[in-house]
Amino acid sequence: MEDTKHVLIIGGGFAGLSCAKKLANRPGVRVTLIDKENHHLFQPLLYQVATAALSAPDIARSLRQLMSRAANVTVLMDTITGIDTEKSQVSSPIRTYDYDYLVVAAGAQTSYFGKDEWAAHTLGLKSLDDAFKVRRCVFGALERAELTDDPEERKRLMTIAIVGGGPTGVELAGAYSDLARRALKTNFRRLDINSLRVILIQSGDRILKPFDPDQSKYTQERLEHLGVEIVLGHRVTGVERHTLTFDEREPIHAETLIWAAGVGASPLTRMLGVDTDRGGRVKTNPDLTAPGMSNVYLAGDVTAHTDAKGQQVPGLAPAATQMGEYIGDRIVDLTSAPGEHPSAPFIFKDKGIMAIIGKNAAVVKMGSMKLRGYLAWMTWLFIHLLFLIGFRSKLSVLLQWAWAYVKDKPGARVFTAKQ
Amino acid sequence: MEDTKHVLIIGGGFAGLSCAKKLANRPGVRVTLIDKENHHLFQPLLYQVATAALSAPDIARSLRQLMSRAANVTVLMDTITGIDTEKSQVSSPIRTYDYDYLVVAAGAQTSYFGKDEWAAHTLGLKSLDDAFKVRRCVFGALERAELTDDPEERKRLMTIAIVGGGPTGVELAGAYSDLARRALKTNFRRLDINSLRVILIQSGDRILKPFDPDQSKYTQERLEHLGVEIVLGHRVTGVERHTLTFDEREPIHAETLIWAAGVGASPLTRMLGVDTDRGGRVKTNPDLTAPGMSNVYLAGDVTAHTDAKGQQVPGLAPAATQMGEYIGDRIVDLTSAPGEHPSAPFIFKDKGIMAIIGKNAAVVKMGSMKLRGYLAWMTWLFIHLLFLIGFRSKLSVLLQWAWAYVKDKPGARVFTAKQ
Repeated sequence: MEDTKHVLIIGGGFAGLSCAKKLANRPGVRVTLIDKENHHLFQPLLYQVATAALSAPDIARSLRQLMSRAANVTVLMDTITGIDTEKSQVSSPIRTYDYDYLVVAAGAQTSYFGKDEWAAHTLGLKSLDDAFKVRRCVFGALERAELTDDPEERKRLMTIAIVGGGPTGVELAGAYSDLARRALKTNFRRLDINSLRVILIQSGDRILKPFDPDQSKYTQERLEHLGVEIVLGHRVTGVERHTLTFDEREPIHAETLIWAAGVGASPLTRMLGVDTDRGGRVKTNPDLTAPGMSNVYLAGDVTAHTDAKGQQVPGLAPAATQMGEYIGDRIVDLTSAPGEHPSAPFIFKDKGIMAIIGKNAAVVKMGSMKLRGYLAWMTWLFIHLLFLIGFRSKLSVLLQWAWAYVKDKPGARVFTAKQ
Repeated sequence: MEDTKHVLIIGGGFAGLSCAKKLANRPGVRVTLIDKENHHLFQPLLYQVATAALSAPDIARSLRQLMSRAANVTVLMDTITGIDTEKSQVSSPIRTYDYDYLVVAAGAQTSYFGKDEWAAHTLGLKSLDDAFKVRRCVFGALERAELTDDPEERKRLMTIAIVGGGPTGVELAGAYSDLARRALKTNFRRLDINSLRVILIQSGDRILKPFDPDQSKYTQERLEHLGVEIVLGHRVTGVERHTLTFDEREPIHAETLIWAAGVGASPLTRMLGVDTDRGGRVKTNPDLTAPGMSNVYLAGDVTAHTDAKGQQVPGLAPAATQMGEYIGDRIVDLTSAPGEHPSAPFIFKDKGIMAIIGKNAAVVKMGSMKLRGYLAWMTWLFIHLLFLIGFRSKLSVLLQWAWAYVKDKPGARVFTAKQ
């Protein structure tokens, strides 16, 4: 086994996991997959954990279990804090790891554009822990609103402000609005659940920027129909406890402040000693290696990649998966036979984008095809159910989810009181 | 509505919930159901959340949702900290509540027999939060055991000590042993999962004291067959970080220390101004009122009740449910028609006790009937599935659970890294 190459993958998201799967049980390769959590997370549905429509096991799965049949893959839960490409080593506070090939797939984190102090007063939505915190905040606020006799306090408790009009912000806003109008409508005796305010704030002139303007407009109308207040063209300039401030607008007071306005790459990219963009993303070579390195690959949200066809690869799950698979195949090629291996560059296969807008509506953009409304929603539902296959028994998720949507009783809406 | 009576129920466990259900939509009565959590918890399966076989929504359900069709029931999430029976008031740090009838069903909490400082180093198992902490501790320890090169540290990380040989201790021990031998057996590459030690400590001379001695013996043999180490006849005399000490025995070092040795009544019973036993439980009148009071009832784990047939009512879910139902019926009688209402005393209908011992075995005692082994396990499974009906869609739970048992892939085994 002397010529077995060690592939070290940092991150068990879509990119890292798909790479590890390509390398599973391949001769000549052993893989160490390191993540700071013990689970792979189906990020596109994370907002549904925040709104208590889905529970953790529906969208998260043990990385060990996913790799249990891959005898050449070792899964470790560790937090990588250093990369030394000269020595071909990465390190955590506990251990140092050598590698022959390094795959940096450490993903994105919430970014406050340099205002890191805002993190103390807002909730991000990147991890299961984040989602549980959001859930706890929103549902806990409703409980306290039911208890209080102070109308000002109740108003604040009954307000959810979401900064960022991208898909996450839109999906959250729609889901909270649905929750009040449907699932919770018979739950409270003292407070009027219809007075729940959901405010979506977008600094630009339209929400869902990656979509076409008419789709943005449709989404805005649809959200407003659901009761969501949309604030366009105002950039948040200050964040205090329960308060967002603006330069040319009244402050917004809300118990729950969700920050869905920006993501940046994992800080690990800064340790590679290569140029990064403002968000910490690396402009990778056509074969997804880091500039000037032949054995260090990057995949997913840590990259700002323009592929050989000139497509800017988006920070979405399908792109991350394709990048991870490409790198896995590439390493198989490089290690399975000696000699030269000219690389075909990575080409992104764009399968479109979609966002759900509460129950029964969505927008979908696939190439020149655009869908909206119920048909788009069915498309969204179908594709996300397909994704969920393999997470739990397909049938069970399908039944539970279908049941919840039919009965307007999504999930258990349970939260725990303590941190 | 001037003669509408206000029934205040403290606690949304089996006792409080069954009482509220009896009073739901009854004329002449309005109910306030107060719990410090927002959910009712199916406690008998809580250990399965700790072992990651079930997830929160499987065994917990929003009290609001459970009461959503009961227009006369207001659910509040608040922590009652004072009872004034003279003024017929209870209070929390936020509010004061008046009542005509008070039902104290505040349940039990982990008791350290006066050694409250032991709580800092051990994990209890009474709430969902407790169960998540246990899960995080056990699975986190395995992750660190996979990382470490220190054999002493690994040994400690791979040891789970459970204090208390009652049903909870037995069920946990069996479940962790199963987990290592079945679900996790292909999950680790570096550590030997079979070296996971599960130690069950019981100060008395046998485990499962409420069962017959031959059932205790069977359970012990069965657990030992599963690899569980059982320590009998030694009382824990000291608890330090990761260590249990004894008077006449070597200390036990374990990363995970679970305290399942004792429960005491909620401290609220001490505020009633009546005598309580050592565990804080109240010896209630034949109609479950508190001594000397006609409008204060107690139900469930806050009572030490001997019924009119001389039966000591056990601290189990069926007993709590029956008490709650009895009190609900009693209040309906008292409020629905004027005049005298002689009370038939509460009589406990004993339906038996059972404990599961890992996969495929259990012990059941129903009156003079005793079962053990596979048939007892099937009985346990059937009865607990019946209980779970109504929590989620019956079919969905059945499928998921059956699937998990068949495939040895229980749950998602996901935990979150932060507190």
